[in-house]
Amino acid sequence: MSEKKSFHMTPDDFRQNGRAVVDWIADYYNKIESFPVLSNVQPGQIRDLLPSEPPFNGEAFEIILKDVNDLILPGVTHWQSPNFFAFFPANTSGPSILGELLASGLGVQGMLWATSPACTELETHVLDWIADMLALPANFKSDGTGGGVIQDSASSASLCALLAARERATNYDTNEHGCEGNLVAYTSTQAHSSIEKAAKIAGLGRQNLRLIDVDEKFSMRPDMLRARISQDRQNGLIPCLVSATVGTTSSNAMDPLDEIGRICRSEGLWLHVDGAMCGTAAVCPEFRHIHAGLELADSYCFNPHKWMFTNFDCDCFYVADRKALIDTFSILPEYLRNKSTESGAVIDYRDWHIPLGRRFRALKLWFVIRHYGVKGLRHHIRNHVELAQQFAGWIAEDDHFELAAPVPLNLVCFRHKGGDAINQKLLNRLNQSGKLYLTHTVLHDRFTLRLCVGQTHTDARHVKQAWVQIRQITDELTKS
Amino acid sequence: MSEKKSFHMTPDDFRQNGRAVVDWIADYYNKIESFPVLSNVQPGQIRDLLPSEPPFNGEAFEIILKDVNDLILPGVTHWQSPNFFAFFPANTSGPSILGELLASGLGVQGMLWATSPACTELETHVLDWIADMLALPANFKSDGTGGGVIQDSASSASLCALLAARERATNYDTNEHGCEGNLVAYTSTQAHSSIEKAAKIAGLGRQNLRLIDVDEKFSMRPDMLRARISQDRQNGLIPCLVSATVGTTSSNAMDPLDEIGRICRSEGLWLHVDGAMCGTAAVCPEFRHIHAGLELADSYCFNPHKWMFTNFDCDCFYVADRKALIDTFSILPEYLRNKSTESGAVIDYRDWHIPLGRRFRALKLWFVIRHYGVKGLRHHIRNHVELAQQFAGWIAEDDHFELAAPVPLNLVCFRHKGGDAINQKLLNRLNQSGKLYLTHTVLHDRFTLRLCVGQTHTDARHVKQAWVQIRQITDELTKS
Repeated sequence: MSEKKSFHMTPDDFRQNGRAVVDWIADYYNKIESFPVLSNVQPGQIRDLLPSEPPFNGEAFEIILKDVNDLILPGVTHWQSPNFFAFFPANTSGPSILGELLASGLGVQGMLWATSPACTELETHVLDWIADMLALPANFKSDGTGGGVIQDSASSASLCALLAARERATNYDTNEHGCEGNLVAYTSTQAHSSIEKAAKIAGLGRQNLRLIDVDEKFSMRPDMLRARISQDRQNGLIPCLVSATVGTTSSNAMDPLDEIGRICRSEGLWLHVDGAMCGTAAVCPEFRHIHAGLELADSYCFNPHKWMFTNFDCDCFYVADRKALIDTFSILPEYLRNKSTESGAVIDYRDWHIPLGRRFRALKLWFVIRHYGVKGLRHHIRNHVELAQQFAGWIAEDDHFELAAPVPLNLVCFRHKGGDAINQKLLNRLNQSGKLYLTHTVLHDRFTLRLCVGQTHTDARHVKQAWVQIRQITDELTKS
Repeated sequence: MSEKKSFHMTPDDFRQNGRAVVDWIADYYNKIESFPVLSNVQPGQIRDLLPSEPPFNGEAFEIILKDVNDLILPGVTHWQSPNFFAFFPANTSGPSILGELLASGLGVQGMLWATSPACTELETHVLDWIADMLALPANFKSDGTGGGVIQDSASSASLCALLAARERATNYDTNEHGCEGNLVAYTSTQAHSSIEKAAKIAGLGRQNLRLIDVDEKFSMRPDMLRARISQDRQNGLIPCLVSATVGTTSSNAMDPLDEIGRICRSEGLWLHVDGAMCGTAAVCPEFRHIHAGLELADSYCFNPHKWMFTNFDCDCFYVADRKALIDTFSILPEYLRNKSTESGAVIDYRDWHIPLGRRFRALKLWFVIRHYGVKGLRHHIRNHVELAQQFAGWIAEDDHFELAAPVPLNLVCFRHKGGDAINQKLLNRLNQSGKLYLTHTVLHDRFTLRLCVGQTHTDARHVKQAWVQIRQITDELTKS
């Protein structure tokens, strides 16, 4: 037998196998509600099923796809189940999956304009579209001093904001000589853990990130912020950034951007605003109040990969002054030099974030916006908010339950009035049932359940079922 | 007319549209050689074709897909063309595209083991497989003190290595109190620009990254490294990391890992090894000498998304002591607490890199390894190396050309003997022809062309055509 000349999948085999995967996904969505939402495998259970050695000889695609069913699916927690109410959503949609597929097929790198001009230009264009769709401040658009870029996550976006703030505050000297241990940044006690992670990575240190107290609605207190900045300045420190949140992860609290923004302007601090999940709501005019004061911000991010039907990763990061960002990250080795870059007429997104390589993520965003239209996006976002508000109403009306925080949009924080133990048990039992998946937080030192409505296919019946389940298990727990 | 209840793509529509995209990709690969490899659009040309406003009403999928042909394709530089010889490759393959498609369809988050156990366990398992396939040191495997994780890029992996090194050198105090301006790191003058970017991000500062001189083969000089470390210590500085390269971007130079490793061991420095493209070669036993000394390294990365038929992003990052990495990144807010994490029996990859969210990237890697088998991967890697060596032979034998650096694997650095001007013109004319795409570097102060053989479908005839083109245009340039 002669040796094989090529082990590649032929275009015709790709066509056939591709159809099989497309059908697999369609079938998966048709039966997704039949799986337990939270995987109930034990640690090591999936690995135990896998051969300890990689195959020497290649295997048929049908066998690989069959193994996805047999070996992988039992270990999957179904983030795309309409009964997924945990964390924040990471939703997706048909047009997004197909946009990502096309990007994989094209397999281009967008690190420089020249390495695939369409990858850069579509991204700039779609991010300008989104700025309009969300009525973001004009200075975030590319026709002014600012512009948008796709990052992998809000964690990375916040880190980039902190780095640009660090450099602006030290006249780009930190990039040259390193941190001197005198820079401080600010966020609230309720901010996402990624801000602390960023303070560590950027060389400020955890203890130089001030966690400012919040009010009874879990929103940052501007008076406390102002006092702390003043105290730090008196101690010879250099405040560089405030990171405010539009919809905290724990309870969807909204920081007062206008007051914080005025402080930042008068103190010369970089204001970064993290709207990771809630930003999407601004596609509906009636929810745009969440961004009041955003015109005072230096940077802003939100994640279409959370609540805008676009699969991970897709964080939209905007800056008001792109020069500050580019000056922070720019490096130009000989092997990346090219005429277009040197003309100054193009954007090279490599200088807008940490990685050099980047894939064509604008395609899926473009597909989503064009498939749904602004109208379709508004329809579904409104529906999610309405369902969460309805659920919050049921909680408020029930004598055994209480709301644990305001419900500005699509996240409901609630608890049984019987104390932490029963809430913890209730959560475990709900998640073990496989019928839905919720996660928890702690508010005012009390164990609190969170129900977030944001999965693409979550509709009235799923939220209603969730409430039925919650009451039923509560009955069982309180009777026993 | 009644209002639409849902704007989502139905599973049946997904099936139909999915087939259309799969067919589009198969057709694209069938005709890929008919496109100019390097896009020849002008800055702004793609944006000018796009409507200034996002659509209010959703559009049909056929129209969107047609626009990909009409508006996007002209602006694409075809990284998947077999005539792409520029930079390093970012190759892909059928099984990889379909693995990514499946990951998009499942849409799970792997930030914690609990958020999708299979996503974490398959990743750990496949990275152990790869450690065996490349014969990496045993301490990089998960059954010892180390382990592997998928990062988006070697840039991010290098940054993570530097951060872990920074923390280990300061007993985790930098994370607490910030950098003090006294940490230094080392790499060669030929190292990738991402190391400098990492030094800036991590708060060390560009000037605290020592660029160590190289020998005539562009490999780091251990004697110069040792001398510089000694000098820095005498000046009261704290050396923390050496980043060595297996195959530099400019010329594929190999740093002497064994000698550098012994210095790092005796000095207590973290050794990171960047094998971004060349690492893949170690799948073939005859090329494993490139990793001699790797057992002295604390971390290592290479990119299956460069030369192992796996689409971007997929960097495999290994550490010998996972505790050092986890202690650098670990943060546990209440809303991420869960039983599995607290049991200590599982890996939570969130603590192994910068972003929190992460998609199911192990699937595509698993698909690629199973489809090709170790045998198929070896076959194609060997073929690429052989083609590059053949091309290098033609250069060496031609009186008008010369090799500008050793050719250890699949990158050939060469130049016409007529000086910089003719080489610059030659490069421009080649790329403008659309028939192939090369990039350049500067070696020993001379403009040098690079031809890297690594695109999935590059075969003998493409390399032969490239050589014909090069000689033909050279003839035209030297005659005129």
